[in-house]
Parts: sequence; structure tokens; C-alpha cells
Amino acid sequence: MSEEKIQAAAMDAEFSAHLEQEKRFVDLGLRRYLPSEELPPHTIHKAMHYSVFAGGKRLRPILLLSAGRTVGGEAERLLPAACAVEMIHTYSLVHDDLPALDNDDLRRGRPTSHRVFGEAMAILAGDALLTRAFEILAHFPEGTELAPIRLRVLQMLAAACGTGGMIGGQVADLESEGLPVSEELVRAIHDSKTGALIRASVQAGAVLAAASDEQIAILDRYARAVGLAFQIMDDVLDIVESSTALGKTAGKDTQQRKATWPAMWGVDASRCKARELVDEAVSAIAVFGPEARRLRQIAEFVCERHR
Amino acid sequence: MSEEKIQAAAMDAEFSAHLEQEKRFVDLGLRRYLPSEELPPHTIHKAMHYSVFAGGKRLRPILLLSAGRTVGGEAERLLPAACAVEMIHTYSLVHDDLPALDNDDLRRGRPTSHRVFGEAMAILAGDALLTRAFEILAHFPEGTELAPIRLRVLQMLAAACGTGGMIGGQVADLESEGLPVSEELVRAIHDSKTGALIRASVQAGAVLAAASDEQIAILDRYARAVGLAFQIMDDVLDIVESSTALGKTAGKDTQQRKATWPAMWGVDASRCKARELVDEAVSAIAVFGPEARRLRQIAEFVCERHR
Repeated sequence: MSEEKIQAAAMDAEFSAHLEQEKRFVDLGLRRYLPSEELPPHTIHKAMHYSVFAGGKRLRPILLLSAGRTVGGEAERLLPAACAVEMIHTYSLVHDDLPALDNDDLRRGRPTSHRVFGEAMAILAGDALLTRAFEILAHFPEGTELAPIRLRVLQMLAAACGTGGMIGGQVADLESEGLPVSEELVRAIHDSKTGALIRASVQAGAVLAAASDEQIAILDRYARAVGLAFQIMDDVLDIVESSTALGKTAGKDTQQRKATWPAMWGVDASRCKARELVDEAVSAIAVFGPEARRLRQIAEFVCERHR
Repeated sequence: MSEEKIQAAAMDAEFSAHLEQEKRFVDLGLRRYLPSEELPPHTIHKAMHYSVFAGGKRLRPILLLSAGRTVGGEAERLLPAACAVEMIHTYSLVHDDLPALDNDDLRRGRPTSHRVFGEAMAILAGDALLTRAFEILAHFPEGTELAPIRLRVLQMLAAACGTGGMIGGQVADLESEGLPVSEELVRAIHDSKTGALIRASVQAGAVLAAASDEQIAILDRYARAVGLAFQIMDDVLDIVESSTALGKTAGKDTQQRKATWPAMWGVDASRCKARELVDEAVSAIAVFGPEARRLRQIAEFVCERHR
């Protein structure tokens, strides 16, 4: 069987259709909450749309929506924050791809922002996506009674994006190039660089759905395991897949001697680790029963995806 | 009389001492609200401190504090937002100085962030300053009853920083290089690139002090005029002063054929325009009587400063 067939068999068709529907829902939200390309200054709005609509998996917003729904939240109330986390994720990719950082020419199968719009515009487009995300979080969901919830979500996401989270992970990643890799270092980079925003996305969904502290703690165990599994699989795919299938320049991690899981333990052990983490995530949310079906499927999907 | 003497004579000694005191107050706040340099990851925290403590005038935070106090606000309640606007301003300078944008080697008399820490770290330090600013605004001033005010300040500042404000102005500035300069264009760039954040700083001070809509509108007329006067004087100084006095590379605007006020009307007419604007600002706030003394002095200072 070809890889495509294995993937198709592994992924339940109903879940596949659900993922597509979720993506469309998020994309509609993103079109609503991003400044229109028709508005001046056109170039930067075009650059923002270009990177946001470059075919991402929408993992973070879908996790936010699914976590929120699992504890009884309504999709419409969750959507603005779901869009904000995708804008934040996109900003981090745009800046990460810059020549001064990872110097990537390809992202999701298309030329990176700075290759299309130039470096200056890519820097500003990233800045604008981050700024817009916070603006949306400050405005939605509307209603004076929701003001404390909006602020809590803002606080969580800002902390996850800062030097104690995503940016700190990017710094550690930069500084680790060429250094000997230790488990502690790899784990610390994963936890902050991608883990923090994934965890904050799940937490934001829970908080917006008025989850209890106990529910939030359970969802956080899930998010921590899924986030790490996702990053490990990303690093595995960087090694085993071609640039075409991957949609970005393959093998760059190895070239740049980045501190990654497969660089330490090899591809097979890394796949096993991801599998373990997914099982851990799934058992953490067992207490939610059938309501957590989507979260379980997402965890499985993270482990089985090929790109 | 030397320029220094004229400046000294023009600036009331009492006001001068007040400005120093305000700066120290803001600097103490910045040390409180920035992540410590002792915390890992050290490099980025050092880079954030380096640019924030590079000898800035603290115009935006001082305007925020003065506007808030004019309508009865308490300094301690105003301080976190004052620090946030300075972090936002600093982030914009760090990114603006990057090789892909203005390519400046000097800022406030010292090598720019990317010259000291490298381009990657300068990009991330700018990102981190913006993120930290929003985090502070989401947390302070504390108190559930102040949640709606925190959100309003967040909304205003995020809008002022986005593509409809500061970033939009940077884009217009970039795109105007080498183009024929029109009054409309120059004004639009000024209004968005520096005007928006200055206005939002003044408004934030007023909102945090629970000002009435009428008071906010008056302070906004003041801020609009002072902001434009400040930018005009900045462009004038870029032409008339040496790099040493200016603390940044002088004459760059002319070299890059930027759309500036003196590029259109020359230095003398620009000085007159700044004077007119300061008078406009001062008369807008006459209604506040003696309470507005500091705002009046700041307006005069903007027009008379030499660097």
C-alpha cells in the first residue's frame, strides 16, 4: 500500500470531513477578523492574507474549538480566539522563516513571505498579525460580563507568546545550533517553542467555555502531550519526507544541526515516543467520555499524519 | 549664546527637574515590568533592556502620565500602561532600525540592537517587547472592577499599533521612498507612523483616569497637534543637527528621499508649522486651567528641543 493509502485507511472518513469543515469555519473567521486586502495599505494586508491562507492545518484553532466544545462551549464564542491563535502562529512562522533566522524559502509548499513581499514587509506583516491577534482578543467575545474572561485569555496567550514561551523557545533554538543535544534541552525547546502556544490554545478554549479548574487541568495534560507528540512528528517528517510532500525545505534541521528528538534518538524511537504521548493524551481526557471524541481523533491524527 | 545656553534658558529649571523625575519614575516601572536580565533566556532579556534603557526621552509615557493626572488620575494606576507604551515604542524602533527597513547603525547615540545582538535577536527582542506590552496591559491596573478599562486601553493601543496606525505608517513610509512628496502623503505618514501611538498614549492616560468623553476629546486635540509638532521637529533635527548631537545617523531622511515636512517646505517653514501646532495644542487644553500646566510645558518642550 502507498503512503497515501495507509493514511486514508488510518483516518476515519467522517473525521476527515469534520476536519475539513472545521478548517472552513476557521477560514471564514479569519476572513472576518483580518483587515481586508481591499483596504489600504494594500501590500501589508496582502502579505498578511498570503501567509494566513497558505494552506495551514489550523491545528491550534481546531484544538481551541474542540477543547471548548468538549466542556460545553459554543463555537461562535470560541471563534475569535481560535482565529487569534492562528494569526499568532502565522506571525511566528513568518518571522522564523526570515533570512536572519531559519532562512527558509518554502513554507507549506509556497515561497515564504519575505521571498514574495521582501524582508521589510515580512517583518511588518508578522508584527501586524501579532498586533491584530491581541486586538481581536481584546474585543471578542463581546459583552461586559465576559470582560474578565477576555482578559484571562489575553493574559494566557501573551504569556505563552513571550520570552517564557514561544519567543524564549525560538531563542533557545537559535542558540542551540551546533551544540551537543541533551534530552533536557530538546524538551525545553519543544515545550516553549511550540508547546506553550498549543497549551494556551487548549486552555483558551476551556476558559472561554467557562470550564472548571479541574477540567482545565485535565485538558492541559492532554495539550502538553499532544503538543510534544506533534513537534516530534514534525521533526521526524523533516527527516523522512521530501520537500515536495512536506511543503517546506526538508532536512534543514539536520543541516543546521538543530536540537530535535530524532537527532537524539533516531526516527523509530521518536515515532514510539509520539505514540506513547498520544496514548497519554487520550487517557487524560477519558473522563470526558464521548464528548471528547474529537480531541481523541485529533491526537491520533497528530501521530499518524504524513504531512 | 550657544545652542545649549538658549535651550537651558528656554527650559524652565523646575520643569527640567520634573521631566527628570518623571523619567526616573517611568524607568523604575520599566525595570519592574520587563523580565529581569537575570532570567533565562538571558540574551533576549539583555537585548530588551539594552534598547529600552538606551536613553529615550520617554515622551509617550510622560504624556500618558501627564494626561491622566490632568484629569485626576493617580500615577501608580497609570504607570503600567505608561511602561507598555514605551515598550511598544521601543519595539517599533528596534524593527525600524533593521537592515531590511531603515538600516540604521546608531540610535540614541549607541549601536542599534541588531548591531549588538545580531539581526535574529533584534527581531525577536522587538517581538518580545510588543508581546510583553500587551501582557502588562492585560494584567494592570489590577482589580475586577477595572477590567472594562483595561480592555478599552488594550483596544485603543492595539488599534494604534496596527495597520491602521503605526505599522500602516511604516509601510507608507517604506513605499514613499523616492516618490514625489505631497502634503497629503507626508501628513498621512506622520499621523499613522508616530501620531497614532502618541494619541493613544494620551487617550490611555485619560481613560485610566476615568475621564469623560468630552475630556478625552479635548486631550485628543492636544495629542494630535503635539504629535505632529514632535514629528516635524524630529525631521527638522535630522537635517540641521550632526549625528553626535542627534544620537543617530543624521541626514538619513534626505539620503533615502523620505517624505518629510522639511523635505517639502524647508526647515524654517517647518519650524513655524511646529510652533503653530504647539499653540493649537496649548489652547485646546486651556479649559483645564492650572491642572494642565505639565501638558503645556511638554508641548513647548517638543517645539524647543534641540535633540
